[in-house]
Amino acid sequence: MIVVDRETLASLPLLTLAAPAIRDAYIAVSDGRANLPPVGYLALPGRNADCHVKYGYIEGDPIFVVKIASGFYDNPTRGLPSSNGMMVAVSAETGAVVGVLDDKGLLTDLRTGIGGAIATMALWRSDAQRIGIVGTGTQARIQIRALAALSDRPLQFSVWGRSADKAAAVVADVADLDLSIETTDDLEALCRHSDAIVTTTPSRAPLIRSDWIAPGTHITAMGADAPGKQELDVALVARADRLVVDLAGQCLDHGEFAAATQVGLIDEGRCNALGAVISGAAQGRRGDQDITIADLTGIATQDIAIARTALEALGLL
Amino acid sequence: MIVVDRETLASLPLLTLAAPAIRDAYIAVSDGRANLPPVGYLALPGRNADCHVKYGYIEGDPIFVVKIASGFYDNPTRGLPSSNGMMVAVSAETGAVVGVLDDKGLLTDLRTGIGGAIATMALWRSDAQRIGIVGTGTQARIQIRALAALSDRPLQFSVWGRSADKAAAVVADVADLDLSIETTDDLEALCRHSDAIVTTTPSRAPLIRSDWIAPGTHITAMGADAPGKQELDVALVARADRLVVDLAGQCLDHGEFAAATQVGLIDEGRCNALGAVISGAAQGRRGDQDITIADLTGIATQDIAIARTALEALGLL
Repeated sequence: MIVVDRETLASLPLLTLAAPAIRDAYIAVSDGRANLPPVGYLALPGRNADCHVKYGYIEGDPIFVVKIASGFYDNPTRGLPSSNGMMVAVSAETGAVVGVLDDKGLLTDLRTGIGGAIATMALWRSDAQRIGIVGTGTQARIQIRALAALSDRPLQFSVWGRSADKAAAVVADVADLDLSIETTDDLEALCRHSDAIVTTTPSRAPLIRSDWIAPGTHITAMGADAPGKQELDVALVARADRLVVDLAGQCLDHGEFAAATQVGLIDEGRCNALGAVISGAAQGRRGDQDITIADLTGIATQDIAIARTALEALGLL
Repeated sequence: MIVVDRETLASLPLLTLAAPAIRDAYIAVSDGRANLPPVGYLALPGRNADCHVKYGYIEGDPIFVVKIASGFYDNPTRGLPSSNGMMVAVSAETGAVVGVLDDKGLLTDLRTGIGGAIATMALWRSDAQRIGIVGTGTQARIQIRALAALSDRPLQFSVWGRSADKAAAVVADVADLDLSIETTDDLEALCRHSDAIVTTTPSRAPLIRSDWIAPGTHITAMGADAPGKQELDVALVARADRLVVDLAGQCLDHGEFAAATQVGLIDEGRCNALGAVISGAAQGRRGDQDITIADLTGIATQDIAIARTALEALGLL
């Protein structure tokens, strides 16, 4: 059993290396090649903490992956990150543990960023260049990095956050990329002027109003991944021409699309799987006037894809 | 993150060290101090293999544990064990991974053996000494070792298996214990002459008939842990005076008690939790004529208990 630490994983160019495998990870789900059991959830009563156990298998893959991801929400008061995690890669040939990826959540951050970029690039207009980033956390940075790494368009980024300092810190943190990037304190203006918007906040109330969104806009909603989280007005979700999900069972239950589902504005029949859109089995954007929204909640095949890519890049698979 | 290998774990006297924690692991469940989500199950289509993910938390514990246990049923044809596994111990204070116990299934074998011995010793007659061991696999050996380690009675073991050679191998493998132990090829005689019987086979049809079991006998049924497995005649289960389970939801669904449940001979109301029997909250054996049966399917609190014990013994917790 090999242990790979976070620093080693961070040294790999995974944003580009893992993108093809993560594209296939979505297609595997919509093609029925993936076995994705329900995500395990362990609450720790009295601890303000929980743990998710995510695991799955893509038929024919040499490994399967079990991911342990913890959230300890009092950690920041002790100077520790609230999120932590690791992945265990198990041989699908023998059941032996191939490797422990002690990534402390890095691989989840990266596969989430790659997934967001794949969804955005699958659904934006052919002339989309102005990208609005909503939020100033880890995923704001990684969504920018993933789009910059995977797109060959001359993108122009604008970053909004409640805190101007935090938005400026995002810009500073991606300075190595030599991007066209600015900050704004006007979320409405950012929405009105963006061709594609990526939302990355932990908001529990809608931030983005329907009347701010022009025809032709694409939105990738990354933030809502648990009951009660919501970034978009339900009217906007209902109004969108195309709704795309990584996994309908998750998105309509506890993702961005949950709120609109609960009030009866949308249902699963309105949604297409991202994998089907990527593979061409389902239609994504139909024209330059469509408003498209992708809701991503994260699926275990992404974890398999990035773990396999990392192990292959290190010569361990 | 510390990795502890199987050899290091095997060097610890865990059968005795972990027994108090495993006793408490059962009581924690019956007391409502344990959070035990449903066991995760991942099938690997086309591989004749599967994986169970078992995890839970005992309130107040310094760690929680996620166990990955795989079964690759074609492995023996390649000279590999069919079972494999590892445990990840996570801090219940911070969510950081405390240690990876790369035990390859050893800790599961040991905690299962300890659990069986605890159940047997909680329910056997006060004068029970003759122990019948049914089966010749790993658990046959570990049940003998656990009873020898945890009981101070002068026990007399008799081992039955379909293969006389395999039964003899069990006796040879525990020769270091200087036990009173013999083999038999007559399962009926073993049943008739044992005060307590421990069944450890993967049988899918009943091996032990009701009319072979005398009043006063105790049986610990370890083998049936999945749908379709069964070691005892349903008439015997129905006839028993006291039925004890580690977790009713598992035992009546896919343990030894599932078959009798399915034909309507017993129900959950007939069963007491092992933890409640150990703590005194429920009555176990009521007298020397009771036939008692304990059905153990394995619970995550046992994994927590043995992982915590091992980490403490190694000075890592």
